[in-house]
This record gives sequence, structure tokens and C-alpha cells, in this order.
Amino acid sequence: MSTLDDVLSTIDANQSDAVARLFELLAIPSISASPEHFPDCDRAADWLVRELQALGFEAVKHETEGRPIVTGAAKAKGRDAPSVLFYGHYDVQPPDPLNLWNSPPFEPRIVKVGDDERIVGRGACDDKGQLMTFLEACRAFKQGGGGLPCNVKMVFEGEEETGSQSLPAFMAKHGKELSADLTLVCDTSMWDRETPAITTMLRGMVYEEVVIHGPKRDLHSGLYGGAAINPIRVLARVLAELHDENGAVTLPGFYDGVEELPEEIAEQWRDLAFREDRFLGDVGLSVPAGEKGRSVLEMIWSRPTCDVNGISGGYEGAGAKTVLPALASAKVSFRLVGKQNPEQVSKAFRAFVKARLPADVTAEFTNFGASPAIALPTRSEALRRARRALEAEWGKPAVLAGSGGSIPIVGVFKRELNMDSLMVGFGLDDDAIHSPNEKYERSSFHKGARSWARILAALGA
Amino acid sequence: MSTLDDVLSTIDANQSDAVARLFELLAIPSISASPEHFPDCDRAADWLVRELQALGFEAVKHETEGRPIVTGAAKAKGRDAPSVLFYGHYDVQPPDPLNLWNSPPFEPRIVKVGDDERIVGRGACDDKGQLMTFLEACRAFKQGGGGLPCNVKMVFEGEEETGSQSLPAFMAKHGKELSADLTLVCDTSMWDRETPAITTMLRGMVYEEVVIHGPKRDLHSGLYGGAAINPIRVLARVLAELHDENGAVTLPGFYDGVEELPEEIAEQWRDLAFREDRFLGDVGLSVPAGEKGRSVLEMIWSRPTCDVNGISGGYEGAGAKTVLPALASAKVSFRLVGKQNPEQVSKAFRAFVKARLPADVTAEFTNFGASPAIALPTRSEALRRARRALEAEWGKPAVLAGSGGSIPIVGVFKRELNMDSLMVGFGLDDDAIHSPNEKYERSSFHKGARSWARILAALGA
Repeated sequence: MSTLDDVLSTIDANQSDAVARLFELLAIPSISASPEHFPDCDRAADWLVRELQALGFEAVKHETEGRPIVTGAAKAKGRDAPSVLFYGHYDVQPPDPLNLWNSPPFEPRIVKVGDDERIVGRGACDDKGQLMTFLEACRAFKQGGGGLPCNVKMVFEGEEETGSQSLPAFMAKHGKELSADLTLVCDTSMWDRETPAITTMLRGMVYEEVVIHGPKRDLHSGLYGGAAINPIRVLARVLAELHDENGAVTLPGFYDGVEELPEEIAEQWRDLAFREDRFLGDVGLSVPAGEKGRSVLEMIWSRPTCDVNGISGGYEGAGAKTVLPALASAKVSFRLVGKQNPEQVSKAFRAFVKARLPADVTAEFTNFGASPAIALPTRSEALRRARRALEAEWGKPAVLAGSGGSIPIVGVFKRELNMDSLMVGFGLDDDAIHSPNEKYERSSFHKGARSWARILAALGA
Repeated sequence: MSTLDDVLSTIDANQSDAVARLFELLAIPSISASPEHFPDCDRAADWLVRELQALGFEAVKHETEGRPIVTGAAKAKGRDAPSVLFYGHYDVQPPDPLNLWNSPPFEPRIVKVGDDERIVGRGACDDKGQLMTFLEACRAFKQGGGGLPCNVKMVFEGEEETGSQSLPAFMAKHGKELSADLTLVCDTSMWDRETPAITTMLRGMVYEEVVIHGPKRDLHSGLYGGAAINPIRVLARVLAELHDENGAVTLPGFYDGVEELPEEIAEQWRDLAFREDRFLGDVGLSVPAGEKGRSVLEMIWSRPTCDVNGISGGYEGAGAKTVLPALASAKVSFRLVGKQNPEQVSKAFRAFVKARLPADVTAEFTNFGASPAIALPTRSEALRRARRALEAEWGKPAVLAGSGGSIPIVGVFKRELNMDSLMVGFGLDDDAIHSPNEKYERSSFHKGARSWARILAALGA
């Protein structure tokens, strides 16, 4: 019998222990946004170091300016095996609002729903459950398969939920040790609960805050209204003009670097039979709001967008107040695709606003992020092998998916180490990551580990 | 020696005590917009009842559906004296943004600026300082002048800043007791710090809040951005289209009932040599924002306007959050003139919004006020006497002014009791009412009381 079968059998046999190990990690409230939980972030990092050492990995906890970063490394059993770097994060989102949880967020438990079992707790999916699928796969190779089929390195950070501030400097310093043939990331979703997915497109982002200043102080709209310029009126006009009648973004040059979807991907997406009505219907909508003539999947995966994420100005309390405010502000973000240049988009936005300011009005800008989109190769050998491996596990071909969200770290790997990433994850749309009652299907956890075992075996073959 | 001179001397001699009394009232945070301050509104009403009783007035605190209304009445010393009804309000605007105040808003203090002394605190001008000028004038007649020259009634409400909801029903019920020959109102401004003014034109107002609803819950802009309609984008477009390129309001039928200024008033206003540059320059502006071809005085006194008084939606905290919000809202007010019909303007606004809603988006409206504009007679005997009295105090003729603000109660007095109002106030443009660091010049407070003493004497002569 092949080694892979032994490995898969070992994973199956170890399920209870694997869940127990995950529960230990889930019980640590490693919330990177809360200073009072910084010690818990350290505990989670220490826990990972011990786990890696128990697996025979060399493991190190590195102090940073923020939360510690854990690295691990172990050799393949054979020579000339390829090397992979697995990335995950041990920090989690804050659990509030606490009152909406059905059980305490850091007391993980199994909840049965029909025939399914769910692992419930903060981080169950994002990203503790997902990263443990990879550790369990490695364990099975060590215990039941005679050794790893690839040289495996790992890096776990503790600031993914707060912007990965320490990671770029760490990568710049430790790049050489971390360098590998391919990065593996387990922080994305499946297409649906039966169909695996490899995410190959990630949108980038530019996030700007603009404050429009008019009169030097708040005025009484009865005494000055009509004569004094109202910054909300100016802001409304600027924001209204960011989209045209067809839902396209009007910033000059905005679509520079945006390419049409390759026909093979477009065709694959059409074949997915994505239910636009259900996707929108779930959130109370029926008509797509983006560019006319585009499918919803294009709108959320492969087309750039502009959204106003927040707006504020004047009197926002209950009832009426006749103020003519001194300022108004908006938070505006752009999701980028293809080769759109974040700096150019930021510049174009600022110029767009300034061109629309009447006399006496000024604009002040703050940038909260600028990262390009990422498109990973869809025809590489590694991807082909991973797809075959996933199909063997799930019985269905893996979808090559886009993601509307951004995972900036994938760009950092590419820039700093010139490494492409293979993003395979086992989350589901209803996992409620960042929300109360976060869960991870037990089948995702179990078959996720099996999937990684198959992928590692395929890459090392 | 005439009685009036005694009265004026008494006012002069009582200045320190008068300021101390005003400070007591200013220290009560009677914010009618905040339920947690409703008990403070009661305290302010009780304080006024005690003050009136101390002056020998019959005083009553009337419960209403909202904040209490205080009435007072005292007879003139002579027979056949005319009767006046003085109106003021004891409620104040919320003090936010608190961080822009140089001292706590409800800890009144005197601040010296050059040779001037300013009474600083929320309500210092609007309307506690102003209403106390009248009380101090009455006190002086009682203490130093042998009695009041007119039968004096007073009515103080506690909901002026929130739309005077309870007053119409109160007037309908208590109209007979309150009826008098003339209403006196002290809630307006002087022409400048040396020149008194009588306000004879008041703009009306329609105040609407609109909430735009899109998705049924807040969404992640990465996952839904592009496909899901953003209510802020819809709201921005609606608000942007409320004005045309020339600063005119675009609501269909909005200018129905708006008449050109009578030539005699237009001529008087031209003669005022109003310094547009200074009026705007004081608040950091240089170019009038209203209808092209109109003077600033027209814009603020005799032309209708539209202002967005507040806007809110999505993430308004520090930093970045990629939310696509479920709703966005704005508070929009219209200042009305001439015969503009408030109900029609309200209807036109709602139709205007609804006509601009894309699929899946709904709008919800709340009205916070609808009152027509008011024009008072400019040739009455009472007005002539008041002008002479003001000129005697200030050494300059009183300007017959318009006011951009609305005092809905003046319309209620006219409608319910068929009484005209004499609006004399001592506010200045830089008093920052409704803004941080609201102040009232000590000279306004002192000479305001003297002005009322002269007016009462003139009316009673």
C-alpha cells in the first residue's frame, strides 16, 4: 500500500485527538486587537512552538514590535524534495457582541446540526481550525507515513486581524530562511460544502478618508443658510459623481490595468451556475448594483469597485438641530484588480475631490491602506497537482475562485520572496468568521487535513 | 426725576446680581433634545417659577406632553395700561462637540476680550441670556420704578430647540389667559454691536430626516462590494441633486409663493451697506454659496434655502473598517419665505427622494417641523414706539431686519391669538449660538435690559 493511504488512515484514526488539540488552541483568547489579551497571544504562540517541536520541527518564537511570530522547519524524508512555506495566523477577532453567542466564545464545543457536527468558538475557522488542518496532515506523515514528502517550513503570525504590521519587517529580515518553492495558505473558503476551491485572484485595496472643510466653525443654518457653503453638500456631490449611470467608477484612469477575464476562467465561472438571486437575496437585495453587463461574480471577484464605508457630518443625534457644519467626512475604499496601481488610484481620488471643491472649501486626506491586487498563476504545475489532489479527496474538481477580500500577506510573499501562493481553504460562507457563533464544519477540519496530505504528497511526488 | 430714569439706574446698580442670577439658570443643562436631561428641563422651569414669584408674578408650571411650560402674570401699576405677552424658551441646544469648548458649557463664566466682557456658556445668548434681559427690566420696574407700565404676561417653553411640539395645543387651551395686545420676543439679533434691530421677517422651516435602507444588514465590502447597493452612494446622489449649478434648490415647485422683495425694503437693505465680505470672512469664507445674482442679505433673509444639517452612515470611528452599511441617513432642512407652503415642500422633498431610489432601496422619513414664513407689519404704532425707545438707548435708529432663522411660535401667536409680535433681540453674529463657546456680550445683557425698560415704558405711556 502506498504511503499516502497510510497517512490518510492515520488522520482518520487521530480525529478525536486532533479535535482535542484544536480545542486547546481555541481556548486561548488570543485577540490581537486587545492589549489585555496580548499575554494570550504569547500563550498561543508558545502553544504552537510546543506542538511543532512535538512533531519534530525546529520551532522558534520570534519577538517583534507587536505580537510574536512562530516559525518551524522540518526536512522531507527524501532528497531533492520541493520546499513549501505554510502561512497561518493564531490571532483572532474580538468576540463582541458577546450577548449574541450561544456559548462562550473561548469554550469550544461540538454542536450537532442534523447529521453535521460543527466546531464552535472564536477562531474555529479563522484561522486556528484552518491552520491546524495543515499541522494534522504533517503529523500524519511523521507518524504513519514515514516522513514528510516536502521540506516544510511554517510561519504563524499574531497580527493578521490588525493589519500584519510586524510581518513585512520580519520577512525582510528572515526571508532567506523562509524562502521556499511555494507558499501554502489556508485562510480561504470552499466553493460550497461539497466543492473545493483554490483562490487565485485577490482584490487589492486603497482606503482613503477625506475631510471637507468649509466655514471655520459650525454655523446656525437659519443665520447663515443660503450664504455659507455647506461641506455636506460639497461632499455629497463628490461622492455622487464617483459612479456613473451604469455603475462604473468615474475616476480618470481608474480602469487602467484592469483586464478582461481570461476566457478559460470566464467559462469556468459561467459553469459554476452561481446563484446571483440567492447571493443577493440572502442580504435582502435583488438587483446587482455594479457595472451594467457584468455578472455578480465578476463584480465581487474580478472587477474593481468603489464604496463609501462611512460618512459623517453635522448633527447626527436624535431629533432636529439646525447646524450648518464646519466639516464633513467620508471613508472611501477602492477594491483593485489586475494591474491597477494603488498609488495612482489614491492620487486620482484626491485630484477628483479637489477638482470639485468650490471656493473657500478645502479637503484633507488620510490613507489607511494601499495594496495591489494579486493574480496567481492558473497554469502552474503546482496548481495542477493541487487540483488533482483536491479532486481525489472531494470527488469534484476544485473551482479556481476569486475573492473580493484582500489578503495582503500574499502580496508580501510575492514582493519579498518572489514566491507564489497556493490558497486552499475549507471555510464555508456560513462559518460566521468575525461574527458571533463562528464555527468550522468538522468535515472541513477532517477532510481539510486529508486534503493537505494529498496536496503535500502530490507536490512531493 | 422720571420713573424711567429710576428704573434704568436700578438696572445699572443690579448688574452683578443680574449676572449671578443668569449664571444660576445657565448652570442647568436643560437640553430638550436629550431624554437624560429632561429632569434638568424641569429644574429650569422650576427656577423660572421661583424667579417670577420673587418678582411678585403669579407663576405656574404647566405639565405638557413634552417639557413643561411656565407662565407668569403681573398687573400694571396704572389702569388702562396695555398688555404684553413676553415669550422666551429655557431649553438649549446640545453642547457637542464638547472638545471644542474652551470651558465646560454648563459652567458659565465671564471672559474678557479687550475691553469687552462676554458671558460664555450654552444658552448664554439663546435664549436664557436674552429672556433674562426682560425679567431684569421687570424687576427694575418693581423695585425702583414703582410698578410695571404694562400688564405683563410671560410664557416660557422648553421645546423651542426641538420643534415646539407642545406649544400649539397649549396655546389652543390657554389662549384666553395669554391673550394680550402684543407679543414681545427676545430671541433675535442686533444689526451690529452698536445698532439695534427689530426683526419683521422670519423664514419658515421644513425639517425632514431621511433614512435610506439598502441591504438588510451591514456587509463586508470585500465580499459584497460592487454587487450590493450602498445606501451612502444613493443618499449622496439625492443630496447632490438638491441644488443646481447656480445654487438654486431643484425641488419641483419649491419657489411657488416666493415673491421679490418690496422695493421699499430692498432700498432700506441696500442703504444698510451690509459688508458681505466681513459677514462671510468672520466664519472663514469669501464667496456666497447661494443663488447666483442675489445679495447675501437676500440669501439669508428673504430667499428660501436648503441645507443638510447632518449626515451619518457606516463606520464613523477612527481608522478603517470595510463595511458596506445597511443604511445611511441625513437631516435636511428648508428655510421658507413668502407664501411657500410647508406641507407642499415636505411632500416635494419626499417625492424627490423616492424618484431617485434604485431597485431594492427604500426611504423612511420623519418630519421635525413645518412652519410657514412670517412677515410682520412694519408701520404699526407699537413698532414706532419701540424704534424710538431703542434709538434712545443705543443712539442709533433700529434697523428693520429680516431673519434667516425661524421662530415658529410667532406664527402660532398670530394664528391662535391673532397677535402680532415685536421681535427685539440683542444677540450678535459672533455669539456662536448652537455652536461651541456660545456667548452673550455683557453689554447686550445690560443694555438689553435697559432697552426693554424703555420699550415697556414707551408702550405703556
